[in-house]
Amino acid sequence: MTADVKRLSLNQITTDQWNLQQAVEGCLRNNIGWIAVWRHKIEEIGLKQAKKLIHDSGLQVSSICRGGMFPAATAKERSLRIDDNKRAIEEAAELGTDTLVLVCGPSADRDIDNARAQVADGIDQLVPYAKEYGVKLAVEPLHPMFAADRSVINTLDQATTIAEQYDPTEVGVIVDVYHVWWDPNLYPAIERAKGRVLGFHVSDWKVPMPDMFKGRAMMGAGVIEINRMRQAVEQTGYHGPIEVEIINQSLWDREGDEVLTEIKQRFMEHV
Amino acid sequence: MTADVKRLSLNQITTDQWNLQQAVEGCLRNNIGWIAVWRHKIEEIGLKQAKKLIHDSGLQVSSICRGGMFPAATAKERSLRIDDNKRAIEEAAELGTDTLVLVCGPSADRDIDNARAQVADGIDQLVPYAKEYGVKLAVEPLHPMFAADRSVINTLDQATTIAEQYDPTEVGVIVDVYHVWWDPNLYPAIERAKGRVLGFHVSDWKVPMPDMFKGRAMMGAGVIEINRMRQAVEQTGYHGPIEVEIINQSLWDREGDEVLTEIKQRFMEHV
Repeated sequence: MTADVKRLSLNQITTDQWNLQQAVEGCLRNNIGWIAVWRHKIEEIGLKQAKKLIHDSGLQVSSICRGGMFPAATAKERSLRIDDNKRAIEEAAELGTDTLVLVCGPSADRDIDNARAQVADGIDQLVPYAKEYGVKLAVEPLHPMFAADRSVINTLDQATTIAEQYDPTEVGVIVDVYHVWWDPNLYPAIERAKGRVLGFHVSDWKVPMPDMFKGRAMMGAGVIEINRMRQAVEQTGYHGPIEVEIINQSLWDREGDEVLTEIKQRFMEHV
Repeated sequence: MTADVKRLSLNQITTDQWNLQQAVEGCLRNNIGWIAVWRHKIEEIGLKQAKKLIHDSGLQVSSICRGGMFPAATAKERSLRIDDNKRAIEEAAELGTDTLVLVCGPSADRDIDNARAQVADGIDQLVPYAKEYGVKLAVEPLHPMFAADRSVINTLDQATTIAEQYDPTEVGVIVDVYHVWWDPNLYPAIERAKGRVLGFHVSDWKVPMPDMFKGRAMMGAGVIEINRMRQAVEQTGYHGPIEVEIINQSLWDREGDEVLTEIKQRFMEHV
C-alpha cells in the first residue's frame, strides 16, 4: 500500500523555477492541496502578498522552510540569528502553518561540540516565542555530508534528544528520507520519535549523485526504502502531509507542470 | 602535542600518479618508513615483484587496501567475492602486514538491512582463513554519503558491533577521520572500540567539496578535529602507524615528492 495522494505537499524548492504565485497556481491546476513555503519566495513578494495568495488559493501550508542556522562566531551574530528565527515564526503563523522547519546550521569553527550546544541553546531561546505564536519547532536532521556547511544535527536520534527537552506541542522532528535512510539505527530512532514527528519528506538517493546539494532524485529512482519508512513514521502517529522535496537542477530546468505530474505519479507508486 | 612523524604511513592512493615502485622510492627519499599498499598497484606488477620491492626497501606495510565488497545479488557472486577476499588476505601476508582493510560494499538492491547481514556473513566466512594467515580483518566504516555505492557500514559503532563478535586478534576497526568526524556519538564510539583499533587514517573535510569521492583535503585545511581524534584513538591503546589517505585529483596532478613534503609538514602541525 502506498500513501493517499491527498497527503502530497509540494515543497516549493522542488519547483524553484516558480515564484510563489506560480507554485500556488501549479498546485491548484494539479489538484495538490498542500504546499511547503520557502522564505526566499516569501521575501520576493512580501509577507502580506504571500499571505493573501495562500489564503485566496485555499491551499494548506504544511511547513515554512526554514529557521535555524544557530551557531555563529560571536554572541552578537547568534543573537541576530535568533531575531531572524523570530521573523520565521511570525511568517509561519501568518501563513497558517504550525510547523517551522529548522535547518540548524554548521559550526563557525572546528568545534562541532560547541556548535551543537549553540543549536540547543538557540532552540531553547525560541521555544517561548514560538509557543506564543502557536508554532512548533521542527528539528530536521541533515545528512552527515552536510555537517560542515548546513547542519551539525545529523541523525534523527540527535534531533529527538533535543526535542525531548520540551513538550511535544513545542518541539518535534522532521523525518526526511534523503537525510536519514543510511542510519543503522533508523527504525528504532523513528520509533523513539513517537508523538514528535512533525513532517515527513520524500525524494530519493540515486548513484551517481550529480551534486551533493542539488542531487536528489525522484521517488523510486534510487535506493531508499521510502514506503517502509513512511509506514514506520505512521506508526509514530504521524498522518499529516508528506512533502515532496527534491532539490535538483534538472527539475528546475523542466516545465513545472510536467514536474508536478511526475511527482504525483511517483508518489502514488513509491510513497 | 602532535603525533611523532615516524608514525606517518603513506596510503598509496594519496599518490595515485605513482606506481608501487615510484611510491616506495618516494617514501625512501622522503624518509617515510611506512606505506599502505592498494591492490590495484600490486596487480600492475604482480605480487612477487611487489613483495620484492617492499622487502628490498625496508619499508613497513601498515595495511593492504582493500578487501570487502561482500553484498551481491546472487549466492554465486557473493562466493566469488569471498574468493577475492581470500586473495587479499594472501597478499597482505605476503607483503608482511597483519592488517587487511575492509570496505564492505553497497547493497545490490534497496534492502540495506539484508546487505548489512551479507557483510556480517562475509566477514564470518573469512575469519578462519585470515587467522590462518596471521591477518586481521579491519572493518572501516565509510561516511554515510557512501552508503549507496561503497559501504553499508557507516558508523564506528556499527563496525565495532561486527568486530565484537570475534577475538580482537581476528577482527578490528579502522578509524578514518574523514568518515567519522561528524558522528554525534564519535568519542564514546572510539572508547568502545578499545583494543580493536587497527588503523588511524587522516585527511580533512573542506567546504566546498570538489567531489564526493575525490574531495578530501590536506590535514589542517578543513573542519576536522584531527588532533583530538588522534588522542582519543591513542586512549584505546592504538599507537601504530597513521595513514595519510587523501583522495583528491588535485594531488594526483602534482609532483609526488611535493605532495609528500606537504603531507609531512601538515602531519607534524595538525595530527
